[in-house]
Amino acid sequence: MNKDLEAYLRYVEKSIAEINFPKTPASLYEPMTYIMSLGGKRIRPVLTLMSSDIFCGDFSKAKNAACAVELFHNFSLIHDDIMDNAPLRRGQKTVHEKWNTNIAILSGDAMLIEAYKLLIQYPPDISSELIDLFNKTAIAVCEGQQLDMDFENTEVVSKEEYLEMIRLKTAVLLGCSFKMGAVIANTSTENQKDIYNFGVNLGIAFQLQDDILDLYADQSQFGKQVGGDILANKKTYLLLSAFESASPSQKSELNSMLKMQQKEEKISAAKNLFHQLKVKEQAEEKMNHFYQTALSNVNHLQIAESGKEILISLAEYLMNRNN
Amino acid sequence: MNKDLEAYLRYVEKSIAEINFPKTPASLYEPMTYIMSLGGKRIRPVLTLMSSDIFCGDFSKAKNAACAVELFHNFSLIHDDIMDNAPLRRGQKTVHEKWNTNIAILSGDAMLIEAYKLLIQYPPDISSELIDLFNKTAIAVCEGQQLDMDFENTEVVSKEEYLEMIRLKTAVLLGCSFKMGAVIANTSTENQKDIYNFGVNLGIAFQLQDDILDLYADQSQFGKQVGGDILANKKTYLLLSAFESASPSQKSELNSMLKMQQKEEKISAAKNLFHQLKVKEQAEEKMNHFYQTALSNVNHLQIAESGKEILISLAEYLMNRNN
Repeated sequence: MNKDLEAYLRYVEKSIAEINFPKTPASLYEPMTYIMSLGGKRIRPVLTLMSSDIFCGDFSKAKNAACAVELFHNFSLIHDDIMDNAPLRRGQKTVHEKWNTNIAILSGDAMLIEAYKLLIQYPPDISSELIDLFNKTAIAVCEGQQLDMDFENTEVVSKEEYLEMIRLKTAVLLGCSFKMGAVIANTSTENQKDIYNFGVNLGIAFQLQDDILDLYADQSQFGKQVGGDILANKKTYLLLSAFESASPSQKSELNSMLKMQQKEEKISAAKNLFHQLKVKEQAEEKMNHFYQTALSNVNHLQIAESGKEILISLAEYLMNRNN
Repeated sequence: MNKDLEAYLRYVEKSIAEINFPKTPASLYEPMTYIMSLGGKRIRPVLTLMSSDIFCGDFSKAKNAACAVELFHNFSLIHDDIMDNAPLRRGQKTVHEKWNTNIAILSGDAMLIEAYKLLIQYPPDISSELIDLFNKTAIAVCEGQQLDMDFENTEVVSKEEYLEMIRLKTAVLLGCSFKMGAVIANTSTENQKDIYNFGVNLGIAFQLQDDILDLYADQSQFGKQVGGDILANKKTYLLLSAFESASPSQKSELNSMLKMQQKEEKISAAKNLFHQLKVKEQAEEKMNHFYQTALSNVNHLQIAESGKEILISLAEYLMNRNN
């Protein structure tokens, strides 16, 4: 992580610590303070600050918007964790486990509203643009989450449908985070569009990298079980590519692999089949396509070269990871 | 119901029918169309139209805000029904019963965002005021719902705490519905304040009447089981007044009543104790206090007498009911 990122991150942590939720009812507000204190990469608010800084040389103006996107992200984590029946989040109990499902539903709702409370603090013309963008993004994230749940019970999902799902569920919020900073900095519509697309394309590339790392990461450097997606029969880009490229006999081998019980055996069968079908190469090609498109979005921006360099080094930082 | 109310109601139904939710993902949007089609009194959107009409002679301008408050109300019903584990809503299956809890959580979230999408369609200076009001109201409704859940596990709840809970959970949304119409009509800040307070005070009076009717309504005219709150040991204004006025020996009689299993016997024991403690009279006095305050809010408005008459006849309509 370079020096600029660290400075933004410190400012994000300070700003989040300063959000003053009311004290009562405690069971409504304590879960908000709790989940916000669990940390995480804080990528989204950093993007908002960075974007504002690049376009107008001031990131402090973007403070409320940065906190709003992080609140929204954490609202979605609280509700997603209920839906996934997840016991842990960042190594700590999820909100519905620590309190209960009703409290998790309601404090999630209130957290979404708290995000709007931060956005409405800008002057009307700015807050109007921010909230319009936020509405579209938030609805897209809900649609993406719904598609993701739908896929679990769908026999055949195409790679295109999968890309659309990750665009909605993950990538548009990165685009939105960047664009909010650009709106606050009052840059041109063209620049706003480019930085939004940069975020979306980078987000899709990042998510594809996630899928690849899940099976091909070095276990000694990976935070989770390598092959976790395969063990859960998760329809990732890798698995969907495999099914799309497979011959009838390879399809039946893939289906046999999905039914395997023994962990090591299953992961090795998947790797073997994926190797035959050049699945990793397909995913990397798609990831690089989105990454290159993201870089071309940066090059299209009408800003100083130093700003472009910051964005490109951010993209490199996000795409050169082992976990 | 008078002629004006019916006209507003027809316009509300038409406007709701015209809301065009996207078609996919179906499992995200179908629950919205479903719950909105279950009907209900549509009180809140009618208040928004009526208010706009009274202050500027045009209710069509308030269409989006009216739909937004009804969407918000129905979002809160979807999530409350999960929390209450309720199987039925308006005689039909609740969303989490017809689909499942995950879909009910997510489509509720999306419905809240849809409400904001309607409000952002006003010009920036108006939408900014509307959303600021909406944020404060929505958070208050969440706080009220949380207090209501907290009360179930609280030994002693005071009458004042109960009044604050119903103010937050129910009454502020009526005030907000009225005030939105007033903001759209661009009336004076003073008028906006008065119509807001009218809604809040009327809302509290209405909820107290609800508590009274639940035990004292004529069963032949009442849509639900008379005494339902008593059978569920619900901490209503009646029960809380009874405990506050009771002597130590009457308190132990109240506690025995709460443990009774036989329905008729329990209701009759409650009525008997409440009669001794003048509980109905206390509740009626409090209800009348809020009702009279609501009427004084109307009298304070700087509008034509005909407008005041419409508001007063609405208040009479809401407060002269048997169910």
